[in-house]
Amino acid sequence: MNKRIEELIIKNSKKILLVVLDGLGGLPLGKTELESAHTPNLDFLTKRSSLGLTIPIDYGITPGSGSAHLALFGYDPSQYEIGRGVMEALGVGLDIGYEDLCIRANFATKEKDIITDRRAKRLKGYNVSPDEKNRELCKKLQKEIKEIKKVKVIIEPGKEHRFVIVLRGENLSPEVEENDPLKDNLPVKEIKAKDKDNKEAKFTAFLLKELVRKAEEVLKKENKANYILLRGYSKKPKIPSFLERFKLNPACIAVYPMYKGIAKLLGMEVLATEEGKEVETLKENRDKFDFFYLHFKETDMRGEDGDFSGKVKAIEKFDKILPEILKMEFDVLSITSDHSTPSLLKSHSWHPNPFLLFSPFTLPDGFRKFTERNCAKGSLGIFPATKVMPLLLAHSLKLKKFGA
Amino acid sequence: MNKRIEELIIKNSKKILLVVLDGLGGLPLGKTELESAHTPNLDFLTKRSSLGLTIPIDYGITPGSGSAHLALFGYDPSQYEIGRGVMEALGVGLDIGYEDLCIRANFATKEKDIITDRRAKRLKGYNVSPDEKNRELCKKLQKEIKEIKKVKVIIEPGKEHRFVIVLRGENLSPEVEENDPLKDNLPVKEIKAKDKDNKEAKFTAFLLKELVRKAEEVLKKENKANYILLRGYSKKPKIPSFLERFKLNPACIAVYPMYKGIAKLLGMEVLATEEGKEVETLKENRDKFDFFYLHFKETDMRGEDGDFSGKVKAIEKFDKILPEILKMEFDVLSITSDHSTPSLLKSHSWHPNPFLLFSPFTLPDGFRKFTERNCAKGSLGIFPATKVMPLLLAHSLKLKKFGA
Repeated sequence: MNKRIEELIIKNSKKILLVVLDGLGGLPLGKTELESAHTPNLDFLTKRSSLGLTIPIDYGITPGSGSAHLALFGYDPSQYEIGRGVMEALGVGLDIGYEDLCIRANFATKEKDIITDRRAKRLKGYNVSPDEKNRELCKKLQKEIKEIKKVKVIIEPGKEHRFVIVLRGENLSPEVEENDPLKDNLPVKEIKAKDKDNKEAKFTAFLLKELVRKAEEVLKKENKANYILLRGYSKKPKIPSFLERFKLNPACIAVYPMYKGIAKLLGMEVLATEEGKEVETLKENRDKFDFFYLHFKETDMRGEDGDFSGKVKAIEKFDKILPEILKMEFDVLSITSDHSTPSLLKSHSWHPNPFLLFSPFTLPDGFRKFTERNCAKGSLGIFPATKVMPLLLAHSLKLKKFGA
Repeated sequence: MNKRIEELIIKNSKKILLVVLDGLGGLPLGKTELESAHTPNLDFLTKRSSLGLTIPIDYGITPGSGSAHLALFGYDPSQYEIGRGVMEALGVGLDIGYEDLCIRANFATKEKDIITDRRAKRLKGYNVSPDEKNRELCKKLQKEIKEIKKVKVIIEPGKEHRFVIVLRGENLSPEVEENDPLKDNLPVKEIKAKDKDNKEAKFTAFLLKELVRKAEEVLKKENKANYILLRGYSKKPKIPSFLERFKLNPACIAVYPMYKGIAKLLGMEVLATEEGKEVETLKENRDKFDFFYLHFKETDMRGEDGDFSGKVKAIEKFDKILPEILKMEFDVLSITSDHSTPSLLKSHSWHPNPFLLFSPFTLPDGFRKFTERNCAKGSLGIFPATKVMPLLLAHSLKLKKFGA
C-alpha cells in the first residue's frame, strides 16, 4: 500500500513535527527509564494523545540507526539499503556523491601475512587517546595518499580504530572482495573483483590493493596499527526524496552527522543548529517547512553506556523543553524513536518503539504517562514503523480517499 | 492466506449475520458518538462478546464505500477494483451488465472552449432544488439521446450536478481520454482513444464525442448547465461470488442502492425491504440463507452531516431493534462497520472500525460498552478488515484444519 499512498497525497498548509528521542524504549529495573522519569509535560500531552508501539523492521530484529530511520520515514529498509561504508561516511559527516565508493576501514595489526589483531588493540596504550591516535594516523595516510590513478582518496577518522575511506572518481564498483579475514589470526584476504569479467570491479580492486600497499608503507613504523582492513564497500543509494514521495517540504534538526546524513539522503533541508539550541532552530524555521524531523541523541547515548539514571535524566531534559514545542502548535505532533536502547542491554534492541500521536483527529487514550507498557495498550496498536508516515499524513488531512 | 482459505471451507447449517452500521467509528467531543449513546442492549451483548478494531485498507488510508465493503467481505480492494463509473451507476440503482460502460457525468458551464464552472454552480439558483433541476435536465437529455450507432444510452440523475451515463452495447472500451479538465477555467479536453490502434477505444471515443455534441445541442439554451463532462469510464469487474469463494448462500438487506449494488456484484441475493423494515425482512428470510449482510446507512449519513447527536440517535435506534435480532439466534453475529465517519470530520476517515463478535466460541472480553476505545483493548486486536470473513467462517465452524 505504501506505493499507492503516493497517489493519494495532496498538499495543504498543515505542519507535521516528528520528534525522535533516539533509543527511547527501555527495559525495567523495577521501572523502565520512561516510567522512572518525572515528566509532567509529557504526561499532560499523553492524556490527550493516542499511543501505540512501532516495530522498526520485524519481530525480534534489532535495527541499525540507518535502517531504523528509513523505516520511520516510510522507506522499507529491505527495499532501500544503505551500505555500511555509506553509513560510516554519513556518520563522520562526509558529503558524498552517488559515484563515490565508501569504505569502512580498521587499523589492524599484521605479522607476516597473518592479521593478529583486527582492531590494533583499539588503539589503546598510546600516550594519547585512541581517537587522537586515530586522527594522527589518518592525517599521515591522507598526506601520503591523495590520489591513485586520478581517483581521489578521502580519509576521515572515526572512533577508536575505525575510519572511513571514500574513493571519488569514475568507474568504481563495490563488487570487490574485502581483505578483512573477519577473525583474528587468519591470513589477510586478497582484494579482487568478484567477477573477473567486470572491468569496473577489476579497476576498483587494483585501486584498493594499491591503497592498502601504500598504507602499509606509511604505517610500517607503527608496531600495532601497521595495516588497514577494508569492508562495507558501497555507494550512496538513489532514494526518492520526501518531496517526491510525500509532497512534503521537510527540514531536519539534528546535531549528530549520521542523522543529518540520512536526512540529506532523503532530500531534507538540514538546518544549522547545535546541542541545546534545537527548539530555537525549530521556532525560527517553523513557517518555512511543512515537515520537521527533530532528533535528540542523548537518550540513546546514555542507553548505550548502560547509564540508566543518565537516560532518565535525558528524558526529563526533553520534558522541560516540550512546552516550548507545544506552543508552536503543529497540526500533528508525534514523539517516538527509531529503535529501543535499554540501559540494561547497553545496545540497540529489538523491542518496539513507544509512539505518541497528537492532533485534533486522534482518539485520546487517556493514559497518564508515556511508557512502553501504556503504549502496548494504546489504541494505535502495535504496527510497522513504515506506517508512521501514512498516519502522520492522514492526521494532517494530506491523504485523499482511496477507491470508489 | 485468503486464497488458501477457500480450500478449507466446509458447508454446514450454521448461520452468520454481519451487521454493518455504516460509518460507525467516530472521534470524541469529550466522548465519541458510540460512547455517548444510551445502548442497554448493545451493552448486554458486548459483555458477552469479543471486541477488536479492523483496518479497512491500511494505516492512514480513508476508504471509499466500495473498497471498504470489498475488504469487509474478504476481497482485497487492491486486487478487485470497482471503477468510479460503476460505483456511481450502482449508487443510483442502475442494473448493469459486464459489457456496459459506466460513466460519471457532471453538468458544467462552458464559455467558448473553456470550462468556467465544472459543476454548473451545483445547479443552485433555480426556482427548483438542484436535484429537481438535475432530474429535469437528465430527462431532457434522455428524451433526445436514446441510442448512438445502435449503442443504447442510459442517463440517470444523481445528486446536485452529478449524473450517470451507461452505454449498453458491444465493443465498448474504458481506454478513452476523459473530457473533464479537472480544474475550472481550462479548455475542455479532447475525447480520444488512449491508444490509437485500439479499435474498441476508437469506437467508444467516437460514441462519447457524439454524445457530448448532442448533449451540448440539447442544453444550448441553458445558461449554466450548458455542457457535460465525463469521467470514471469503467466496466463492472468480474469478481468471484460469495458462493464460489466461501460456499455461502448469502442475502443482502439494505435500503440504499450502492450497497445493494455491491452485494449484487458479489452474488448476494438482494432482499426487498424498506427503511425501518429491515429486521422484519431478516426474520422472514432467516431460514433461507446462511449469510446475511444487514446494512444501516443512518450512522454514516449523520456523520457526513457533522451531526454528532444525530449519529448518537442513529446508534440508539439500532440498539432498540437489537433484541429482535438476538431473538433470531444466529450462530455467529458480528456488528461492525465498513469505515469510520466521525461527525468531527464530516467525512469518511482512516480510523479503524469497532468490531464485535458474538458466538458460542468467542472469548468474551467483558467490556461494558461497545466503543472505539474498548475495541482497541479487545482480545481480537487490531487487524485487517479482510480477515473478518475468515473469522466469521471459523466461528461458524465452517473451516477445516490447515496443514497436517
